Amino acid sequence: MHIDHIGIAVKDIKKATETYSKILNASPTKSETVESEKVETVFFQTGESKVELLGPTGDDSVIAKYVEKKGEGIHHVAFEVDDIHAELDRLRKEGFTILNKQPKDGADNKLVAFVHPKDNHGVLVELCQSKK
Amino acid sequence: MHIDHIGIAVKDIKKATETYSKILNASPTKSETVESEKVETVFFQTGESKVELLGPTGDDSVIAKYVEKKGEGIHHVAFEVDDIHAELDRLRKEGFTILNKQPKDGADNKLVAFVHPKDNHGVLVELCQSKK
Repeated sequence: MHIDHIGIAVKDIKKATETYSKILNASPTKSETVESEKVETVFFQTGESKVELLGPTGDDSVIAKYVEKKGEGIHHVAFEVDDIHAELDRLRKEGFTILNKQPKDGADNKLVAFVHPKDNHGVLVELCQSKK
Repeated sequence: MHIDHIGIAVKDIKKATETYSKILNASPTKSETVESEKVETVFFQTGESKVELLGPTGDDSVIAKYVEKKGEGIHHVAFEVDDIHAELDRLRKEGFTILNKQPKDGADNKLVAFVHPKDNHGVLVELCQSKK
């Protein structure tokens, strides 16, 4: 298990892309819109992990709501696993609340599922597995 | 530049260590108290990056204050750089606010400095360099 990415919720994805290009001294490696979530994503590769910027594509986006409530900042951390179904079963047995009945399609050609922040000391944890 | 670690602020480091041992399905690799900050740290190695739990050693700890104000959650993300002085100069020239005049001693035998969250869309960014 390793950190696949950290997700950062921002108001303005263009502005944030400029900022993180400077901080990381690098160009974004990928961008992608997840229509079902009304989220635009921009990725920077930093070693084996990525920084994922998450911007809203509309006022009713989950990210717009998040930013309105909590402000901009780190939204989640994602860990890549080999077998997401097995990991979710393991965590359910340990008593963690999984927010998705089944892993769903996420950005970056992955299956993803989330563990409730209340079980993780305030951290929204994503598990992800690359699709074959 | 790669993600050296994410830092998670928690109330109770023992409880959080148990939780993250389960989530990550791994044992902590290191723990260390930074007396100057009144912070107890526990590290988990996850690939090339680490998860760092940050707990207070007293009520006047920066972490106690942070948790009181913002709740538990991701406190910062740290990027390992080869030359922290050069990177800080570069970011200062780009207009970022660096919170430390000079890099200071941090946990895990590193020199560290922080970039103000207001410049990074709400994210407290740490730069760190391993001491030789």
